[in-house]
Amino acid sequence: MLFRSIMSCDIGVYGMGVMGRNLALNIASKGFNVAVSNRSPAKVEECIKRSQEEHLGEKVFASTSPEEFCKSLIKPRKIIILVTAGAAVDKTIESLLPYLENGDILIDGGNEWYEESIRRTRELEEKGFNFISMGVSGGEIGARHGPSLMPGGRKECYEALENILTKIAAQVDNEACVTYIGGAGSGNYVKMVHNGIEYGDMELIAEVYNMMQNAGIADDEMSSIFAQWNQGELSSYLIEITSLILAKKDTDIAGLPAQEGHLIDRILDVAGSKGTGMMTVKEAAERGVSAPTIAAALFERYISDEKDLRMRAASMISGPSFDWSSVDRQQLVSDLKDALFCSKLVAYAQGLDIIHKASQKFNWGINLGECARIWKGGCIIRAKILDQIKRAFSKDTPLDNLLLDPDFADQLVKRQQAWRRVVGLAVATGVPVPALASSLEYFDSFRAQRLPLNMIQAQRDFFGSHTFERVDQPRGQFFHCRWTSEHA
Amino acid sequence: MLFRSIMSCDIGVYGMGVMGRNLALNIASKGFNVAVSNRSPAKVEECIKRSQEEHLGEKVFASTSPEEFCKSLIKPRKIIILVTAGAAVDKTIESLLPYLENGDILIDGGNEWYEESIRRTRELEEKGFNFISMGVSGGEIGARHGPSLMPGGRKECYEALENILTKIAAQVDNEACVTYIGGAGSGNYVKMVHNGIEYGDMELIAEVYNMMQNAGIADDEMSSIFAQWNQGELSSYLIEITSLILAKKDTDIAGLPAQEGHLIDRILDVAGSKGTGMMTVKEAAERGVSAPTIAAALFERYISDEKDLRMRAASMISGPSFDWSSVDRQQLVSDLKDALFCSKLVAYAQGLDIIHKASQKFNWGINLGECARIWKGGCIIRAKILDQIKRAFSKDTPLDNLLLDPDFADQLVKRQQAWRRVVGLAVATGVPVPALASSLEYFDSFRAQRLPLNMIQAQRDFFGSHTFERVDQPRGQFFHCRWTSEHA
Repeated sequence: MLFRSIMSCDIGVYGMGVMGRNLALNIASKGFNVAVSNRSPAKVEECIKRSQEEHLGEKVFASTSPEEFCKSLIKPRKIIILVTAGAAVDKTIESLLPYLENGDILIDGGNEWYEESIRRTRELEEKGFNFISMGVSGGEIGARHGPSLMPGGRKECYEALENILTKIAAQVDNEACVTYIGGAGSGNYVKMVHNGIEYGDMELIAEVYNMMQNAGIADDEMSSIFAQWNQGELSSYLIEITSLILAKKDTDIAGLPAQEGHLIDRILDVAGSKGTGMMTVKEAAERGVSAPTIAAALFERYISDEKDLRMRAASMISGPSFDWSSVDRQQLVSDLKDALFCSKLVAYAQGLDIIHKASQKFNWGINLGECARIWKGGCIIRAKILDQIKRAFSKDTPLDNLLLDPDFADQLVKRQQAWRRVVGLAVATGVPVPALASSLEYFDSFRAQRLPLNMIQAQRDFFGSHTFERVDQPRGQFFHCRWTSEHA
Repeated sequence: MLFRSIMSCDIGVYGMGVMGRNLALNIASKGFNVAVSNRSPAKVEECIKRSQEEHLGEKVFASTSPEEFCKSLIKPRKIIILVTAGAAVDKTIESLLPYLENGDILIDGGNEWYEESIRRTRELEEKGFNFISMGVSGGEIGARHGPSLMPGGRKECYEALENILTKIAAQVDNEACVTYIGGAGSGNYVKMVHNGIEYGDMELIAEVYNMMQNAGIADDEMSSIFAQWNQGELSSYLIEITSLILAKKDTDIAGLPAQEGHLIDRILDVAGSKGTGMMTVKEAAERGVSAPTIAAALFERYISDEKDLRMRAASMISGPSFDWSSVDRQQLVSDLKDALFCSKLVAYAQGLDIIHKASQKFNWGINLGECARIWKGGCIIRAKILDQIKRAFSKDTPLDNLLLDPDFADQLVKRQQAWRRVVGLAVATGVPVPALASSLEYFDSFRAQRLPLNMIQAQRDFFGSHTFERVDQPRGQFFHCRWTSEHA
């Protein structure tokens, strides 16, 4: 067994956490020989045990030392690292380097900050090694059965990996959910924004759920509505699981007895976050991109965390009173569907614009249509609409913003009244819908021939001599006004 | 003259840009001897010329070399640096260091990123020097006649400067608009958030202006309305200059002949930004603080900059049609006043919460009431309401969020219907009001006993086993559900 492992593995996976183990099993199940290793050997054993249970034992080779691990790999060696982002990645790389040779390829599959990957690429290339950083989306189930993969780095390295990556990725419409994203760091970046869009998507669904609940629609009925939506244009993984969640009874919690009623009503309204949403918002700010829907989603998680303050505020500040029985439920549900569709599009528009601006900045040459295509399967935001988004970006004319696609523009125009009714009702009744409202405000700002920002330029010139452009003069000419006798 | 300058100046100002020159004149006008210097001598001469014009010549001493400049200062030397933030500050410090002695105090008055100031503090203290970084707000007029000053660093250094700072700062209600903010970097931080609030304030006014304009209210009439508002609770510098801006005819532009009509209608609706709004949004995200109003203001500047795309979108996407003549103007103006008041409060709540969280993180011990107090004069966001905000934070019970102050809570409850009418009208008519709407959404989220984020926690547990808390179990206990047979 040990003998066979020497020089015979197609690829290695270092780091046997949930993601690493499942990705290794995925690779083995596609017929590749995969070497696995981990800092502590216990997790390696767990992977071997799982591989035997899944009858993949002969494709998975355990190594307990970096040396043995590296020796077991066909050259140029290909090693996917799946450890905690940050210092652990550097430590892992350091431990492997003594046993690598020029031309070997290290692949970081963690949710790493893209600037770290750019640094590692530079450092490793100086030493003669190759580095790819690759976003892996889809959680453990995705890793095992087909994730969405977002690799960035040198194109020739991607090509050396392509055969394996296209086989282990999710397959949708006869295509693998993987593509060459672009230069160093681009894979992390696209994965980060994917997660930012995911934040938006989740918050929008939560707000729609809240509106339905306020209108007195019961959990099971909501479950049916989401199930029905999942058959149409809104079809997506998150809509699907929302339907399942709403149907779920409070019976399957480890450590608690089964109880009457629906689980969703017992879950505390305090949401955590792990950083990628925050990073997306920071990057939007940094790149000069408007992304209020994604920001609203992040901020709502933050405000959810202030549960104690909210309870105190609720006791001091009463909202408007409203008779929800006066609302036509069928109309509301239909309006909510349109509002969700439009807002979701806007969230995508924002996310893709962030990627677009970063791609320009870093010369990554990212193809936005390909981003949409590889998100069609494996990942959390997989959705039917991504196929249409892909096509929108694949037309002859380059698309500067998703909302400028004629088909989508048409859809938005047709559905805007429903969208406005939803936000209007929420505003009147005091139900918080920050993401739905921010999306509509983005839409109304984006389609505004004239925004009132002339006032802001006037103020800036008044107090800080920042100057302004004029509507009756060519762009790029800046003027200052002597607003008062005190002004120079 | 040269003889007198040796060892006789109370303080030095290095950097003779607009801010440095005016601050030096301010210091001289308060009876202090001030040494001035600059990398290029021409600007020093300009300052000397101005000081003579203002009959302050005998208080201002020109130095053309760092050595002469440092030698002219009473020990411990106090030097305010006013150069471009970033590398120029380090270069200036480097050029001065050879002529300084232990205990001398360098003060950076630029809009520096707070982490840079923390680094400089550490580096300078290691060499035996002291460092204060001080936010200076109010533009050139503030610098000359009394700015709002936000110094952070060692308390004993602040005390050594207090006599000068309290005399040169703006004076309001018999108090100087300066206070000891807190430890290293805190002064920059508070100034940064001040600017973030300023972004919010400006965007809110622009949106109110847009609503009035849509309702057919003419520039001069709007000018009168803002002038009237400036007599009441909304009284503030920005409301005051908005009134002046709206009244301004197109007659005082350097390089252009005087024209008929109002200038505001000729200014292009593309707004610039210089970084502090962006940094505030990034910090809100980093500190876990919800700040959608400030983010909306930043994002709206970004989207204003996409003028070409907006023009194309406007031609493709039509908004709702609406007969504005049906709107009761008097009611609308009254509603707008309430909406602006409430939204402004929310913007302050967000900004002060960012400062609060950063103060906890960095152990700065910042007094939020004092922040509000020193913003009452000198700076761009100076406003009558800051006195009430100061009092809210000065009560016996610590205030965790501005909206929890009973008086403000009361105000918000009473005015919320007007606020909702304004946002509702904008949503229905397609007038973008992202900051007014985000503020209302923040309000409705903050006062929500129950947010729909239980759905987000359910989704996160479903796809990523992130676990959740329960409403029927103590906080801090986390549960996982076996959502389907595929879940472990």
